Amino acid sequence: MHAPQRSTRPVDAQLYVEVLQFYARQMPLLEERRLEEFLETMTEDGSIEHVPNGWRIEGRKALLTEMRARRGDPDRPLVGEMSARQARADEVAYYDGIVYRYWFDRMRIEPQSDDVLQVGYQAMVSMTDAAGKVSFEPTTTVQDVLVRQDGEWYTRSRRVTHDSPNWADKIHNPS
Amino acid sequence: MHAPQRSTRPVDAQLYVEVLQFYARQMPLLEERRLEEFLETMTEDGSIEHVPNGWRIEGRKALLTEMRARRGDPDRPLVGEMSARQARADEVAYYDGIVYRYWFDRMRIEPQSDDVLQVGYQAMVSMTDAAGKVSFEPTTTVQDVLVRQDGEWYTRSRRVTHDSPNWADKIHNPS
Amino acid sequence: MHAPQRSTRPVDAQLYVEVLQFYARQMPLLEERRLEEFLETMTEDGSIEHVPNGWRIEGRKALLTEMRARRGDPDRPLVGEMSARQARADEVAYYDGIVYRYWFDRMRIEPQSDDVLQVGYQAMVSMTDAAGKVSFEPTTTVQDVLVRQDGEWYTRSRRVTHDSPNWADKIHNPS
Repeated sequence: MHAPQRSTRPVDAQLYVEVLQFYARQMPLLEERRLEEFLETMTEDGSIEHVPNGWRIEGRKALLTEMRARRGDPDRPLVGEMSARQARADEVAYYDGIVYRYWFDRMRIEPQSDDVLQVGYQAMVSMTDAAGKVSFEPTTTVQDVLVRQDGEWYTRSRRVTHDSPNWADKIHNPS
Repeated sequence: MHAPQRSTRPVDAQLYVEVLQFYARQMPLLEERRLEEFLETMTEDGSIEHVPNGWRIEGRKALLTEMRARRGDPDRPLVGEMSARQARADEVAYYDGIVYRYWFDRMRIEPQSDDVLQVGYQAMVSMTDAAGKVSFEPTTTVQDVLVRQDGEWYTRSRRVTHDSPNWADKIHNPS
Repeated sequence: MHAPQRSTRPVDAQLYVEVLQFYARQMPLLEERRLEEFLETMTEDGSIEHVPNGWRIEGRKALLTEMRARRGDPDRPLVGEMSARQARADEVAYYDGIVYRYWFDRMRIEPQSDDVLQVGYQAMVSMTDAAGKVSFEPTTTVQDVLVRQDGEWYTRSRRVTHDSPNWADKIHNPS
C-alpha cells in the first residue's frame, strides 16, 4: 500500500476552534426554538437540504415558515406516532413535547478561500420527553458551507445526508 | 432581520483547548469512581446543583459523602428499578453494576476575567451494564464556573439543568 | 486534600487540533468501508486489540482480512441475531445492513516524544439500520499510540477496553 492521499490538510487551530464555537453558538438557538436568532446565523439566502428522499428549502423566510410549523414546543403534549413526511403533509409540529439536542463529531474543514469553508461532520439528534425517555433520530452526515461576512461566520448551505434512506417515513418518536 | 447579537466572542484556541483538556482529565475520574481525585478538580467550596426539582451540595466534604453513597461499584449487581430521588431517600448506590460515561458537546466559554470562566455545554450520560445493555439518562445542559489557581483550572460551581423536569423521579435504568 | 497530581499536562492547541483532525479523517474511512484507505492511516505493523476477552490483530494485511470478513455492506440485509465472537467463528459480516458511526470524546494526549503520542479517549458506536432504528454498542475507552512519519500521523496501536466484559458474546444488534 502507498502513503495515504490526504484529502484535507489540517487547518490552523484558531480557525478550527472558531468554527467549533460557531456551532456551539448556533445550534442551541435551534434547540431552544429561538428560530429567528437561529436563522440569523445563516445567510439571507441560506438553504437546508435533506437527502435522500427529502426536500430543500432556501432563504430565511421560507425556512422560518417551515420551522415554525414543525419545531413545536417542549411544553405541549407529545404528538402521536407520526413520520416527518406525514408531519409536513398534515402541518403537525412533531417536536411538540420533546427537548432535542444535536450531537456533532468529526469536524473536517476545507477552506475554499479565506472567507468560505466546506465543513463536514456527523450529527445525531437526541430526543428527551417530559417523562425522561431518551431516543435518537437516525444518524446523519452533514456538509455545510460557511461564509465570513464582516468578520462573522454564517451558514450558507447545509446538506444533511441521512444514514437511513427511509428516515422521512420512519415513526419519529415511537412510544 | 438584523445581524445577530453575538452573546459570546470566540475565545483563543489555546484557552479553548486547555478547557477541553481540563474536562478530559476531570470526568474520567468520576466515571472511574476515583471520587477524592475528582473532587480535587473542584475548589474546596465547590458546588454541584441539579435543577429543576433537584438539590445543591456544597463543599468537597459534603460532595464526597453524597458521591460515596450514590456512585456505587460497577462490579456489584444492578439495583432494582429505582429513581434518583428514591435512591437518596433509601441510601441506595444506584450506579451499582453500571459503567457510566459522560458525553459533552458544544462548549461555550465566556471569560469573566483571566482566571474565571463561565463554561456552558450539553451533557449526556450513557450507562452500560455487564450484559452490554446501553441506555441513556435524560439529556442536560450544564453551566460551570471554572477558576484558575496557581496555573491550574478548578470547577467552582456546576449547575446541571435537566431536560426532563421529572428526571429525579424517573426510573434510573429500567430493565 | 492536596492539590491534584496532574497526570497529563495540557498540550499545545495546534497539536491537539491536529490530532482531532487526524481522527476526523481516519474514522469515516472505516465507517464507509474504505478499508484499504483506513489501513493506510495505520502503520504497516499497526495493531488493534480488544480487551477483555477479545483478540489482537497485527499488521495491515491481517487487519484487512479480518475487516473484509466482518465489516459488511450497509446495502445488504441485516444478519440475524449474532454475537461478535460467533460472527468470527462463522465468518459472518455482522455489520451487514447497518450504517455505523463512531463517537469520540475526552481526548487526552501525552507526548512521548515529538513524533510519538499516547492518545486516550472514550468511544461509542451507533448503528442505524435501513428502517431507521438506532442502537448502540457497549461503550469503550481507547488507548492509541500515534506516530508521525514524514509529517503525517499514523496509528501504530489501538487498544479498545470494553465497558462490558461480555461484549463479544452480546447479541450485536438485537431486533
